[in-house]
Amino acid sequence: MTYSFPNDLATTARDIERALAALLTADALAGPGRPADRLTAAMRHGSLNGGKRLRPLLVRQAAAVFGVAPEATVPTGLAVELVHAYSLIHDDLPAMDDDDLRRGRPTVHKAYDDATAILAGDALLTLAFGLLAGETTHPDAAVRVRLVAELAAGAGAGGMVGGQMHDIEGETRFLTERAIADMHAMKTGALIRAAVRMGARLGGASDADLTHLTAYAEAAGRAFQLADDILDVTATPEAMGKQTGKDAGQGKQTIVSRIGVEAARRQLGEMIHDALSALLPFGDAADGLRATARFFAERDN
Amino acid sequence: MTYSFPNDLATTARDIERALAALLTADALAGPGRPADRLTAAMRHGSLNGGKRLRPLLVRQAAAVFGVAPEATVPTGLAVELVHAYSLIHDDLPAMDDDDLRRGRPTVHKAYDDATAILAGDALLTLAFGLLAGETTHPDAAVRVRLVAELAAGAGAGGMVGGQMHDIEGETRFLTERAIADMHAMKTGALIRAAVRMGARLGGASDADLTHLTAYAEAAGRAFQLADDILDVTATPEAMGKQTGKDAGQGKQTIVSRIGVEAARRQLGEMIHDALSALLPFGDAADGLRATARFFAERDN
Repeated sequence: MTYSFPNDLATTARDIERALAALLTADALAGPGRPADRLTAAMRHGSLNGGKRLRPLLVRQAAAVFGVAPEATVPTGLAVELVHAYSLIHDDLPAMDDDDLRRGRPTVHKAYDDATAILAGDALLTLAFGLLAGETTHPDAAVRVRLVAELAAGAGAGGMVGGQMHDIEGETRFLTERAIADMHAMKTGALIRAAVRMGARLGGASDADLTHLTAYAEAAGRAFQLADDILDVTATPEAMGKQTGKDAGQGKQTIVSRIGVEAARRQLGEMIHDALSALLPFGDAADGLRATARFFAERDN
Repeated sequence: MTYSFPNDLATTARDIERALAALLTADALAGPGRPADRLTAAMRHGSLNGGKRLRPLLVRQAAAVFGVAPEATVPTGLAVELVHAYSLIHDDLPAMDDDDLRRGRPTVHKAYDDATAILAGDALLTLAFGLLAGETTHPDAAVRVRLVAELAAGAGAGGMVGGQMHDIEGETRFLTERAIADMHAMKTGALIRAAVRMGARLGGASDADLTHLTAYAEAAGRAFQLADDILDVTATPEAMGKQTGKDAGQGKQTIVSRIGVEAARRQLGEMIHDALSALLPFGDAADGLRATARFFAERDN
């Protein structure tokens, strides 16, 4: 059977949307008590009906390298997506990036309020780890704790959250191209890296496999961010479902602001080449990961 | 050897303080990248040099029921304390309770800024789960995933965060005594419950043991919150290291505001009785848990 990227993308988005809708209900979220409807609604607002679900796609595609069935990757993909969703909710807050619009809809703090947005983000992050601990994620507890460790490393102070702090600190001083790349490797790269590694761990990847796939993920993650920065300069708000030209308007330092769009496009091509090279050991089973790397370079929204 | 509560309390506080100081460094927090110094500093500010470490104490004491050595409970206690610390940082934000002072020092958003406080909280929460996934927490991965599940259930939408949302929503309508108790059972009770259950799980507690200890934890947790509400009326800011009389000043609905201090004190006595009754099956090994329940009722700060 020939690999179809559009099919893989659509199926993942459908699976994740369904799983999120089932997971984010007062009944499913009940613990020692029941969450307020407002909290459940804000968690749904911040995670449903939006996004390409690229991180769950990477989980699925990395697992596919080792023959894991797509359905068996859904809880893990969901956990990564919950972390992504929480990070957007918190990043959009007035105290952070102060964004009113996300995927063409009001951000969570605009639809609700700041306190609810903070709590909804906290709850989504917590839920991600609770989900990974459950048996539906993987029958082997030893694999599940590794997934928890990977997600915590990718999402925490040494990863995504740390990158966000570097980004905020960078607003007040000149950053070299290298410093910008390092910040992006944490802010957006670390969760993409975690997604790929978590998929690989679902499939029982060896250390050598993990090394190759991590190299893929790091190159693909850099490409993803660079493409995003290029699109901020070249795309329309309608295509993106959010404001564009925002980086320049805010004097935000990006690779594009440092070297220009044309050089950034060349660099993007090199990154995709690096990502594809890292997949050489894997044959056809890595066609999904290959297609996603190419998609990162070619997407127009 | 006779059990000494003051010794247990002091030793736990010392162990947790040391472990936090070692854990919250840029080196120890490094993942795919290194955290900014500002983030590390804010995480330290929000968790070091403060607090009685009652939740790690409960982890230690619940584990002691099954003969687990105190040292072996430190990583688990630390994880619960990290969640407690994050919750205080986020609760103190202007968008939430808007507190400037915590344990006699500026809150994290006052010492840094709101964005840093949001991120420091997010990073502490994430770190808690990463820590639980590590082998130093317990040699058996099956136990570690149960700890992750317990903490997520206690801290998430069906527990602590859900309780905080109920609390905020309650500000705009009349709450019955029962509704206040249910809210507190989530907001402060759920994490206390998780601490006790996690300690029990470290010791390989049976389902029957867990049932008894959960009953203890729920009664002790209610007692803890009720004592806190009583102290807000009766204690001085100097003794508490934070503002008092704040509940009444804000028109906050507490059990005390509903039934008065004297009736609340009687109710507190009943809760302690319930907590102690739940420990009847356990003999001397539960002396620590007994002492903590009594301490909850008798503390003056």
